[in-house]
Amino acid sequence: MWNIYLSGEIHSDWREQIIKGCQFNNLPITFTSAVTDHDTSDAAGDVLGAEVNNFWRDHKSSKVNAIRTKTFIEKCDIAIVRFGNQYKQWNAAFEAGYCAALAKPYITLHDEELIHPLKEVNASAMAWAKTPDQIVEILKYVVANEIEI
Amino acid sequence: MWNIYLSGEIHSDWREQIIKGCQFNNLPITFTSAVTDHDTSDAAGDVLGAEVNNFWRDHKSSKVNAIRTKTFIEKCDIAIVRFGNQYKQWNAAFEAGYCAALAKPYITLHDEELIHPLKEVNASAMAWAKTPDQIVEILKYVVANEIEI
Amino acid sequence: MWNIYLSGEIHSDWREQIIKGCQFNNLPITFTSAVTDHDTSDAAGDVLGAEVNNFWRDHKSSKVNAIRTKTFIEKCDIAIVRFGNQYKQWNAAFEAGYCAALAKPYITLHDEELIHPLKEVNASAMAWAKTPDQIVEILKYVVANEIEI
Amino acid sequence: MWNIYLSGEIHSDWREQIIKGCQFNNLPITFTSAVTDHDTSDAAGDVLGAEVNNFWRDHKSSKVNAIRTKTFIEKCDIAIVRFGNQYKQWNAAFEAGYCAALAKPYITLHDEELIHPLKEVNASAMAWAKTPDQIVEILKYVVANEIEI
Amino acid sequence: MWNIYLSGEIHSDWREQIIKGCQFNNLPITFTSAVTDHDTSDAAGDVLGAEVNNFWRDHKSSKVNAIRTKTFIEKCDIAIVRFGNQYKQWNAAFEAGYCAALAKPYITLHDEELIHPLKEVNASAMAWAKTPDQIVEILKYVVANEIEI
Amino acid sequence: MWNIYLSGEIHSDWREQIIKGCQFNNLPITFTSAVTDHDTSDAAGDVLGAEVNNFWRDHKSSKVNAIRTKTFIEKCDIAIVRFGNQYKQWNAAFEAGYCAALAKPYITLHDEELIHPLKEVNASAMAWAKTPDQIVEILKYVVANEIEI
Amino acid sequence: MWNIYLSGEIHSDWREQIIKGCQFNNLPITFTSAVTDHDTSDAAGDVLGAEVNNFWRDHKSSKVNAIRTKTFIEKCDIAIVRFGNQYKQWNAAFEAGYCAALAKPYITLHDEELIHPLKEVNASAMAWAKTPDQIVEILKYVVANEIEI
Amino acid sequence: MWNIYLSGEIHSDWREQIIKGCQFNNLPITFTSAVTDHDTSDAAGDVLGAEVNNFWRDHKSSKVNAIRTKTFIEKCDIAIVRFGNQYKQWNAAFEAGYCAALAKPYITLHDEELIHPLKEVNASAMAWAKTPDQIVEILKYVVANEIEI
Repeated sequence: MWNIYLSGEIHSDWREQIIKGCQFNNLPITFTSAVTDHDTSDAAGDVLGAEVNNFWRDHKSSKVNAIRTKTFIEKCDIAIVRFGNQYKQWNAAFEAGYCAALAKPYITLHDEELIHPLKEVNASAMAWAKTPDQIVEILKYVVANEIEI
Repeated sequence: MWNIYLSGEIHSDWREQIIKGCQFNNLPITFTSAVTDHDTSDAAGDVLGAEVNNFWRDHKSSKVNAIRTKTFIEKCDIAIVRFGNQYKQWNAAFEAGYCAALAKPYITLHDEELIHPLKEVNASAMAWAKTPDQIVEILKYVVANEIEI
Repeated sequence: MWNIYLSGEIHSDWREQIIKGCQFNNLPITFTSAVTDHDTSDAAGDVLGAEVNNFWRDHKSSKVNAIRTKTFIEKCDIAIVRFGNQYKQWNAAFEAGYCAALAKPYITLHDEELIHPLKEVNASAMAWAKTPDQIVEILKYVVANEIEI
Repeated sequence: MWNIYLSGEIHSDWREQIIKGCQFNNLPITFTSAVTDHDTSDAAGDVLGAEVNNFWRDHKSSKVNAIRTKTFIEKCDIAIVRFGNQYKQWNAAFEAGYCAALAKPYITLHDEELIHPLKEVNASAMAWAKTPDQIVEILKYVVANEIEI
Repeated sequence: MWNIYLSGEIHSDWREQIIKGCQFNNLPITFTSAVTDHDTSDAAGDVLGAEVNNFWRDHKSSKVNAIRTKTFIEKCDIAIVRFGNQYKQWNAAFEAGYCAALAKPYITLHDEELIHPLKEVNASAMAWAKTPDQIVEILKYVVANEIEI
Repeated sequence: MWNIYLSGEIHSDWREQIIKGCQFNNLPITFTSAVTDHDTSDAAGDVLGAEVNNFWRDHKSSKVNAIRTKTFIEKCDIAIVRFGNQYKQWNAAFEAGYCAALAKPYITLHDEELIHPLKEVNASAMAWAKTPDQIVEILKYVVANEIEI
Repeated sequence: MWNIYLSGEIHSDWREQIIKGCQFNNLPITFTSAVTDHDTSDAAGDVLGAEVNNFWRDHKSSKVNAIRTKTFIEKCDIAIVRFGNQYKQWNAAFEAGYCAALAKPYITLHDEELIHPLKEVNASAMAWAKTPDQIVEILKYVVANEIEI
Repeated sequence: MWNIYLSGEIHSDWREQIIKGCQFNNLPITFTSAVTDHDTSDAAGDVLGAEVNNFWRDHKSSKVNAIRTKTFIEKCDIAIVRFGNQYKQWNAAFEAGYCAALAKPYITLHDEELIHPLKEVNASAMAWAKTPDQIVEILKYVVANEIEI
């Protein structure tokens, strides 16, 4: 059983496409991810009390989210890091750097026009894919189970 | 399945409240803890022979207890560290420091009046909660299992 | 002697401001940094042979740059990570994540308007500063040498 | 050259006594410590902006202080952790736990009446001393340089 | 259950011999391995796009293969590293070095005539075997399960 | 489920006593151990070819044994290290040192007359027991499972 | 001051070329290397007693050599790994694997015709150079010291 | 400059022989060692207060000694571990195990008659020497400084 962490963009259905592709191929994979609902994620720390200052509201929620994401990254075998063409997405680059320092293999998923700004992130990646289908193909190859008693 | 270590105060029922709240929500969590019966814990090493000197009795018992707590801390995903308003509770702060150095995420649980003396402990924590209910809410959020094949 | 790594934005003189401020205060600090000349950095791998494909040119140069930056990050005591208001700057977020996983303390330096997109990066930071002067003040405090035989 | 970190109580002159004793004996030791002036330490983060909420003021200052203390603990060979008879001193117990998890040897310094509440902290310590003079004697023995070409 | 990684030569049936021998003896072992079909392995990265330059085609495929092999090596308890008498087989020596640095025990499998060129690889190995049968005998001994409640 | 490694003396039935005591108490423990039959252990490497020189015969067998013992030590939660009153038993002291460096908690089991020669081994141990029954009592206490959802 | 380990082929003067090129450029580099005299290296263990069996002579000498090389690799910032067109050179591939597992950046130095057999070694390398001059150029770039107080 | 830790037997002058041999050859080595005066070492903890129970006197002194030895072992590049023909010398075997787990290379120094009881200790050693002169020869070879700018 492989454990794969899906990091990054939350505004398209790339996670679902990868998961469905892997299910279709019966791959022995468990997927994990940050909470991907934007508003829920931003409010993750609100239960601990309201903040007047936005910095601290963001800070509290990000730390609650980090309990989840940090644990998932440390337990994963492979991370897929998706960069969309919009928004800063610094959390995706941050998680790629976190993976790199832990020597977790990760694959980036992004369009051709992002090659230059992502060059440092790709320098530590194991592969760059342009479509979720390519990710599914790579995973199919990587997790193939040839021999086992 | 998440593994959560409950550290600190043994004179109130905060552990039970958190466990019941998580059970009520069917969260996939295993809880671990030091032995929380005070007298039993103090006597943990007595089976190895009596001591005339209290320092060594405490020393032996604490080391026997540490076999258990050290193992549980190293295996946990998250620790909850509770500080009551009474007593020194240096073991709770010690375990928070142990978690910090191992990069284990921990959440503190304490009243508002302890903010200042706990500032260093909170500086490395992922969150501060005032009630067991808040802890349950945070755990519910953190362990939510969105996607899995 | 402290070793501080300066990460991120290359289009303003924030590095020089911090270095001059520290020199003015005679702080015992060695600074390191990626090569910050944009064209030189992009061409770092060109000596190894031309590439027809931009992805591989970027890849080669980024890896040559990473020999330098990875070594400096691992040797530093503190990193300062600067985000300007323009450009993707994914390498800065990547290096912050790298520091986080290595438990290297880092301080972010950015304007108030970037609070929300940087919330995950700040969740693992030791401090957020808005100006190079604040960084100098923090460093002055942190590296103060009270006692030594 | 040995590097020794002095942790804990800031209301008596135990640091100075140890340093003077070691100087008197010409021991090859560099001492490090948190900033020990109470008000200065509490205000360590104030340069980054005022906070209306005490929790966040303490949080910011503690993190700035942690840049210093974390670096010193990781670089030290031995820590001395002092517990006075007053105050919570949770930061001292926290730093002892941090040392324990990093396998840094530490020696506690406290009165006999604190034996029971400090039993877990002492279970991981290399020694317990009651006076600064005893610490000096132990250091004199430990750092003795018998043979060297 | 033991996890054994089979590294190296892909032109003889040594993997099958070891697996059959272990199956015959009902040993509780899971075997893992790189993808051993030469053409498939060389083409592992082709799905990500064609390359005009052979270096980059090899590079992409090797990195995709490394996602698999690196994960398997890090999860294995023991590696068997086979060197045939032909070809460079630098990947086998590379994986032996990788095991050595991770302190993973490995056993080499090669003919007597390769003793001298493999002396550095054997200096870090736990054993040298000449035949798959010897490997099976060693595994039978190593994984024997004497006592268990 | 706890994993306990039984190290040391092979000429008395201390292993069986501990295992039976734990079985009697239904403790959730898996025990591991080196191969404890003396002649079998000395011959562990013989299948790899005869040696004319005793040093190399011992060397080969010890390395084959180390594949097993090293793996078991790294996977254990607790080690019990038994020293009898006869023989050198340097392998027991070696394994205690190995545990100490890995921060694995271990308990020694030996008679009172061995206190002085074992003082360094005991300085890093979590407890010293004189009888297998005491070990069973300690394990009963340590692995007690108070709370679990 | 940078520390660079020169690994691999001993039959050409590539080490001297790199060293001279760095000296000419006044680069702040210390170079280390295995003992490169073939006969001396093969005889490294002979002082410990003669062996009748070549395997053990090689084994003893390789381990003595490994005391040196292992220490140098662990202390280096960068390794240069040279593959000539002749001989097995498994020790070079072994050391590359060792570097990879330790996350030490390394650069390979080899002719174009070795691209395919070295693809796994290059997949973990930071760069591939064809000439010592290219290595000198890369080092000149990497160790450039822009800013320092 | 190399750092070599001398472990084990304290009743013969093997340390002095090695040091003189290295001085004669001008080797760039710093030697470290436990305190080797038997009575002084046994009394290392006496300054912390008398003990009625010999176990605790030994315990306290051994822990004080361990502050020194643990620090020296972790800082050394190579350890030499000497076993005499008399006494238990479990501390020597313990330190060899400690080195093995830390991947510190060590060389044993003992007579031929101890081959069998030391087989596990030698299985993890880099070499076995019979005389201090052999150790000097090995060190002369290992620390030879061929190339440096």
